[in-house]
Amino acid sequence: MSVKETWIEYIHRLQNKICAAVEELDGIAKFIEDSWERAEGGGGKTRVISNGRVFEKGGVNTSVVYGDVTDMMRTQLKIEGKKWFACGLSLVLHPVNPFVPTVHCNYRMFELYNEEGDVLDRWFGGGTDLTPYYLIDEDAKHFHQTYKQVCDQFDNSFYPKFKTECDNYFVNWHRNGERRGIGGIFYDYQRADNKKNVEFWMNFGMACGDAFLPAYLPIAHRRMNYPYSEEQKHWQEIRRGRYVEFNLVHDRGTLFGLKTNGRIESILMSLPPTVRFEYNYQPKPGSEEEKLVDVCLHPRNWT
Amino acid sequence: MSVKETWIEYIHRLQNKICAAVEELDGIAKFIEDSWERAEGGGGKTRVISNGRVFEKGGVNTSVVYGDVTDMMRTQLKIEGKKWFACGLSLVLHPVNPFVPTVHCNYRMFELYNEEGDVLDRWFGGGTDLTPYYLIDEDAKHFHQTYKQVCDQFDNSFYPKFKTECDNYFVNWHRNGERRGIGGIFYDYQRADNKKNVEFWMNFGMACGDAFLPAYLPIAHRRMNYPYSEEQKHWQEIRRGRYVEFNLVHDRGTLFGLKTNGRIESILMSLPPTVRFEYNYQPKPGSEEEKLVDVCLHPRNWT
Repeated sequence: MSVKETWIEYIHRLQNKICAAVEELDGIAKFIEDSWERAEGGGGKTRVISNGRVFEKGGVNTSVVYGDVTDMMRTQLKIEGKKWFACGLSLVLHPVNPFVPTVHCNYRMFELYNEEGDVLDRWFGGGTDLTPYYLIDEDAKHFHQTYKQVCDQFDNSFYPKFKTECDNYFVNWHRNGERRGIGGIFYDYQRADNKKNVEFWMNFGMACGDAFLPAYLPIAHRRMNYPYSEEQKHWQEIRRGRYVEFNLVHDRGTLFGLKTNGRIESILMSLPPTVRFEYNYQPKPGSEEEKLVDVCLHPRNWT
Repeated sequence: MSVKETWIEYIHRLQNKICAAVEELDGIAKFIEDSWERAEGGGGKTRVISNGRVFEKGGVNTSVVYGDVTDMMRTQLKIEGKKWFACGLSLVLHPVNPFVPTVHCNYRMFELYNEEGDVLDRWFGGGTDLTPYYLIDEDAKHFHQTYKQVCDQFDNSFYPKFKTECDNYFVNWHRNGERRGIGGIFYDYQRADNKKNVEFWMNFGMACGDAFLPAYLPIAHRRMNYPYSEEQKHWQEIRRGRYVEFNLVHDRGTLFGLKTNGRIESILMSLPPTVRFEYNYQPKPGSEEEKLVDVCLHPRNWT
């Protein structure tokens, strides 16, 4: 099997595995699948879950898409070549309980070909990041530690580098550099060189994808039955507003999708179910809510 | 008084007049004022209302701001000159009742100066547009008719032209060209020439500003006590999601503010109070909800 075929198969296997585990934890809600095709080539499987016991809204999507390199891609993405191919899994889970963090991950590969179909370029990208509404150190440590362990198996320099990239990517720059959450890892444009071949990067992406469930599920499991107040739910909805701001104003993937005739409903699946925007909302000094804002303004080391 | 001074005085008078009328209609909620200053020059008065009987959230803001023309303005806004000045009123009202439309308006002037402080260029811009959740022909006609009458007093060509500009501006291009609402008027970069002098354009802006209350308040007044169901409130929150999408993805004013260190809370005051994002939400065929989507996809003539 080619790298491409191996990766496609992996991504679909991961989608099945994650959906099964999420459904099992939720106990009530089931994913609904929408398969879609893209006029220009390829398609995807969008799987959404909603109104669950644990998950208020979520999606675990895969896509395998390809086409001709367009002028827009050449000018805006600086992409050379005749044809392109992309395959990835993208996931967002918005829990009911404000003590269970929202989580996002995305693992993808990209290939470029010349007229004859030879591979001109190939890279991997991805990441998993956590957006809590209340900061619980134990959970933050577990999440980061899980990804550090995966990274360290491949290269000791990865975790610190990709953790920093994550902290610098998911940022509401218009809010004094407030991060969307407490980060995780993020990497992009990783190519084979004379030290790390294609298989290395593919295996790294697979290891990170496989780490999603052990990184996140134990956190969801231990917080999903926490009692919470209306005020705490209100705070979750305020913070979900920041999630919307990041995704619609800054996220490269979302904006690229919206501007290139991507499948809108699959792209905007990431938006939270219920959201509040209040004028100049400020958490009380010294509160747990303020502690969360503080860690978003000043990312911390968790390992 | 200079044009600038006359306009500044008008804008503040209009803010007072609109706030008083909105408070009177609401009957419960009062505006709270935040005055702010801008490090680079000038400032504003942000007035917000929330949790009213009629208005769930709203803002009526004025700003008088000025500064040096920056490189960003030169390259991204194609602005020439040494210094700039801008003054305007910006308003958004999000009602409680889904039968009362959301409304937005903005009236502003802009000046550019050379080193010596001589005016190099000056233009006016503005508009008022309506975002109903249910289409009520009587209301749509009243709103558009009011602005047509104002436009016709200045130039018969204005209403058709500015109505079309409005239909082409408030568009969620990523949703098959679905409009934010049923429009109104929108104009920008209107300068004096040998037929229409500065006073003409200032008076036009003032007449449009003065038309806000007669265009909108009668609609709010006759729908504010309409009985509505939970499903209709739910629909309003779904549509508010489209409002958020437009403002954060497409609105030039919002994005300019976010990227130039504007006062974030005053800019994002426009976002609705409670919002829902549901995967692939589709109104029932033949329903009132579908009728609304249809008029957003296919703008109509209302006069």
